[in-house]
Amino acid sequence: MMNWGKAWLNYKKIDGMEETKLLDEIYYYWEDPIIVNAAAELETALTKMQEISVTSRRIEKGEEAKLPSGVILQVEESSSLDKEGYRITREENKIFIEGKEPTGVLYGAFHLIRLIGCGESIERLAIEEAPSNPNRMLNHWDNIDGSIERGYAGKSIFFDKENILLNDRTRDYARLCASVGINGVVINNVNVRGAATRLITKEYLPQLKKMADIFHGYGIKLFLSLNFAAPMEIGGLTLADPLDSQVITWWKGAFKEIYEYIPDFGGFLVKADSEGRPGPFTYHRTHAEGANMLAEIIKPYGGIIVWRCFVYNCKQDWRDRLTDRAKAGYDNFMPLDGKFNDNVILQIKNGPMDFQVREPVSPLLGGLRHTNQILEVQVTQEYTGQQRHVCYLIPMWEEVLKFKTYCGEKADTVADIVSGRTFYQTNCGMAGVANIGNDENWTGHDLAAANWYGFGRISWDTTLTAEEIAKEWILMTFSDDERVIENITGILMNSWPAYEKYTSPLGIGWMVNPGHHYGPNVDGYEYDRWGTYHRADCKGIGVERGQAGTGYTLQYHEPNASMYEKIETCPEELLLFFHYISYTHKLKSGKTLIQHIYDTHFEGVEDVEEMIKKWKALEGSIDSDAFERVTLRLKEQLSNSKDWRDIVNSYFYRKSGIADGKNRTIY
Amino acid sequence: MMNWGKAWLNYKKIDGMEETKLLDEIYYYWEDPIIVNAAAELETALTKMQEISVTSRRIEKGEEAKLPSGVILQVEESSSLDKEGYRITREENKIFIEGKEPTGVLYGAFHLIRLIGCGESIERLAIEEAPSNPNRMLNHWDNIDGSIERGYAGKSIFFDKENILLNDRTRDYARLCASVGINGVVINNVNVRGAATRLITKEYLPQLKKMADIFHGYGIKLFLSLNFAAPMEIGGLTLADPLDSQVITWWKGAFKEIYEYIPDFGGFLVKADSEGRPGPFTYHRTHAEGANMLAEIIKPYGGIIVWRCFVYNCKQDWRDRLTDRAKAGYDNFMPLDGKFNDNVILQIKNGPMDFQVREPVSPLLGGLRHTNQILEVQVTQEYTGQQRHVCYLIPMWEEVLKFKTYCGEKADTVADIVSGRTFYQTNCGMAGVANIGNDENWTGHDLAAANWYGFGRISWDTTLTAEEIAKEWILMTFSDDERVIENITGILMNSWPAYEKYTSPLGIGWMVNPGHHYGPNVDGYEYDRWGTYHRADCKGIGVERGQAGTGYTLQYHEPNASMYEKIETCPEELLLFFHYISYTHKLKSGKTLIQHIYDTHFEGVEDVEEMIKKWKALEGSIDSDAFERVTLRLKEQLSNSKDWRDIVNSYFYRKSGIADGKNRTIY
Repeated sequence: MMNWGKAWLNYKKIDGMEETKLLDEIYYYWEDPIIVNAAAELETALTKMQEISVTSRRIEKGEEAKLPSGVILQVEESSSLDKEGYRITREENKIFIEGKEPTGVLYGAFHLIRLIGCGESIERLAIEEAPSNPNRMLNHWDNIDGSIERGYAGKSIFFDKENILLNDRTRDYARLCASVGINGVVINNVNVRGAATRLITKEYLPQLKKMADIFHGYGIKLFLSLNFAAPMEIGGLTLADPLDSQVITWWKGAFKEIYEYIPDFGGFLVKADSEGRPGPFTYHRTHAEGANMLAEIIKPYGGIIVWRCFVYNCKQDWRDRLTDRAKAGYDNFMPLDGKFNDNVILQIKNGPMDFQVREPVSPLLGGLRHTNQILEVQVTQEYTGQQRHVCYLIPMWEEVLKFKTYCGEKADTVADIVSGRTFYQTNCGMAGVANIGNDENWTGHDLAAANWYGFGRISWDTTLTAEEIAKEWILMTFSDDERVIENITGILMNSWPAYEKYTSPLGIGWMVNPGHHYGPNVDGYEYDRWGTYHRADCKGIGVERGQAGTGYTLQYHEPNASMYEKIETCPEELLLFFHYISYTHKLKSGKTLIQHIYDTHFEGVEDVEEMIKKWKALEGSIDSDAFERVTLRLKEQLSNSKDWRDIVNSYFYRKSGIADGKNRTIY
Repeated sequence: MMNWGKAWLNYKKIDGMEETKLLDEIYYYWEDPIIVNAAAELETALTKMQEISVTSRRIEKGEEAKLPSGVILQVEESSSLDKEGYRITREENKIFIEGKEPTGVLYGAFHLIRLIGCGESIERLAIEEAPSNPNRMLNHWDNIDGSIERGYAGKSIFFDKENILLNDRTRDYARLCASVGINGVVINNVNVRGAATRLITKEYLPQLKKMADIFHGYGIKLFLSLNFAAPMEIGGLTLADPLDSQVITWWKGAFKEIYEYIPDFGGFLVKADSEGRPGPFTYHRTHAEGANMLAEIIKPYGGIIVWRCFVYNCKQDWRDRLTDRAKAGYDNFMPLDGKFNDNVILQIKNGPMDFQVREPVSPLLGGLRHTNQILEVQVTQEYTGQQRHVCYLIPMWEEVLKFKTYCGEKADTVADIVSGRTFYQTNCGMAGVANIGNDENWTGHDLAAANWYGFGRISWDTTLTAEEIAKEWILMTFSDDERVIENITGILMNSWPAYEKYTSPLGIGWMVNPGHHYGPNVDGYEYDRWGTYHRADCKGIGVERGQAGTGYTLQYHEPNASMYEKIETCPEELLLFFHYISYTHKLKSGKTLIQHIYDTHFEGVEDVEEMIKKWKALEGSIDSDAFERVTLRLKEQLSNSKDWRDIVNSYFYRKSGIADGKNRTIY
């Protein structure tokens, strides 16, 4: 039986490695916890993958020349490498992993392990890598009581009953993150309530310091989410006005204390004036004034303030067709472009709404020119099947990263912008809302671990394809059996399209049960206050966001604005996001919209049946526990996908009165 | 300021009482706690209503002849009166209240207080009354943690944090119940979970005994809801099979213990095999076998078993149009008619579904001939505005009681059947799911107290009209000011029709948010598992329950069956309950169905505006606290009624595509 708590670091014997007996000793020059961890990681991996005895030891600089063979880890501070970059080279029976700093060596070690684990040749090695993005973060929405907001894999690994958890999983979590290049972790929910507000105090700092130390050994900085009203809630002040001197003094004291405990503390993530959270608006201050106040205080310590752009009116009247939630992020933050300090980063969700199965790219990406930006994606599957459905999300993020914003610079894709190269920024990157919990396999659905793995990999190297990442993950996790690779790749790569087919059509989004967001409910948010409507009637469906409607299309640069504006050029997968369309409108396929809805919903279920067939063919070829767990979830997914199909199709059939062209059962 | 904790027993000075100085002494023969309470009640009431000093004292039998004046309470065990009946007579300056038992005297005392409180003449008195129903019960859905399922008036007055509460409110509650004739009270939720299962044990019995003693003084028997799985959950047995000898032995021991503490304990209410509660089905036993087992054991103590008929498949597939939840009660219980012991009573909800704003009468009422029956109505406003909307429910119950079942007996109305006179039964009656909690005014909405008052009154005397009851309650509660009486009567009497107009149309029901059941959501239960569908499409709406559909109409006797079967004779207020009807179908008014939906939804809101006008005119004429509380709730009701109007109308406009004939705004 496999230990699923090790996920893709559950090293297996690699066939055909017997001849490469050179990998039996690890040497390192530098006594640094990160280097020691890198060496230990290699020792463990190479022992298991070769089924030989491997040792590691420290050597003096220069000694390596005398060694006959082995893997040599070296830090060259004068190197031309990126600060997190590495170089892997081979000279006869020696492999050198060089970094400018220890983290580079650690990442190089994991690279070598991945190469071997994926069965790549190590005969010749001349690798040099640097990360695409300086910040590669996970955001955990873990509550201090141990629950996880939008968590689908058990309880928190960081908190339990208002206490900090520190155990073997803390280290395994850090190892798994580091192995895919994640270098920053926000451990608590952006909605900071109750005792979580006190995480920044002496009550919790001694324990947090221990966690930060573990993380430090894997190149990971600890961040916290911050409660903007903390000066009132725990500081005894009567206000939290960012320009008030008492408030500033209070924050100064708080930050000083944090850095006394944790000198390499990363900084804070802030959700302010959003969905009921407190913020600078209360005091008629701007987001910039709020963020800059904190940024100035944290600057001397080298910390950063990550400020979320998820700000909109969550008390909209559904009767109002002019207010458009999609416009809110741009309208709120564009006027502030250039007003944020250089250690403030705006964190922007990939789409303008909220992590739907299909959204256009947020127009803030390409809009903002003078502001550090982080692209936020949701690894946890809130709207994409909640880890009961397979939904491999890397293809979605790949599309987002490749999107051309036409912002007027040569490097104008989202990947360019969030890497910092478009506007010459150093504080940029990607953040993923984590999908893990204390379930033995970390992610509930075994196949959801590919999203954790993939988030790290694509934020390290935005040029990787979703399929390459899938294959790496399968090889590292399951087996190098051809059919295993082919079938699981097939399942993963078709999972997002399948989920999209049987859920809400053509970019309209939602249609889920309110609150928990699981399962179909076409009108679930239609008459609610959240700004998320489909406006379906007996003739058609869609939100008119062109100039004749809310004018959202104007937030894009040309030619994107015109492309979205015109029905003929609007990408069909986003047609209902941008326009109200008649059920009888002919799509490029020649099908009417209504027939497209019916067909895709039947197809989506068939796709799930196909996935099940592919999965069942693997019985005996992969670990039987994982096989059974995924089999059960696929069964549930099939049943759920039928519910989606039947409810969505029945809804539109009842509303339109137009029969299915293929006479299938619609209720 | 008034003490709203006294509700309608908050005695006020009655003008024009000065000359009736005869009511300054109360005399009673009998040293019984109920008689002492009756005398005390009269003493308090007459003191306050006359603003004079009133005293009460015990006399010896025969002494009354020598008294010059006063109110004389006497128990005549040999009287021809009903055991709970009373006679009130006047001889010159003496008023006699006579009962066969002390409770009759207590009810007579409250009758006299009500007469005076309502400003009736007491010059000549020759009153003789007996209750219509032997059992007049309140069912509280109070949980042992202090919460109340479907409670809208604060927390429980009986439980807090797994403890029994005993305080001044316990007595006031009993006084208020007794004043309207309620004689049985189930204090805990029919869904018996956790510690509530242990209410029947020594852990709670000493405290329950104290509560039962207070209740006893007001003629009220204490009942409990029972967990059918108690032998397993607290008895350590491995099963709860009603035919198993160990199980029977366990129940015998449990009941013996209860009656040792509380000799006049009423018995049990049981929700078995319903919505996930355990029951005899688990052991392939019938409801009759389950109920009779308990009934046999409790019989020697004089207790009864009230068995709820709310049994249906709560895991229905919405795609299935043949299964009909409305049929379930009849299908489950008719085959058992005559199989229940004589101390078992089946408790039947007024309608076949679940307390909707409009339902036909359950066909079990009139179907069952050899079974004791209790009519269950819902005083707490789960589906009728949750005590944020005014909804005076007595007119609904009046309709239900007057419904002719055509069961083949001369006395064939529901009132006849549940009184026991149709089939010569003694264990029958009415139960109301209580609407009270620990809010100062008991019911949250001040006007909701009329439903508590009214439930008692109409279950005591089923010939009373809703309007008579409303007037009594207003006089006792607020004032004898003409405009106060007229306006509040107007508000109450129009409140159920108004609520019906702006919510779900013509008997179709539901259209509420799932779970909490508040606020409009037309498709809220449409694709769910609860068997509660409206089947609306672009052409029409309604559930076909005639012979061409589910055949539910066949559960009624003729001519009701045919009346419901035919669209032309089906009462229009139930049209969509019984039939799928086209939006263009002409109603008797000459309006199409769709226009009727639009019009009633606009009218409902206008009715609320009218209520507000009537209420505002009372400023200064009634207690200002109550005035303000109700004003606030009416404001909320108006806003909510507009949501209902706009969401329901928009839903049907979007679905049908048919414009409003009057061109009003529909979204």
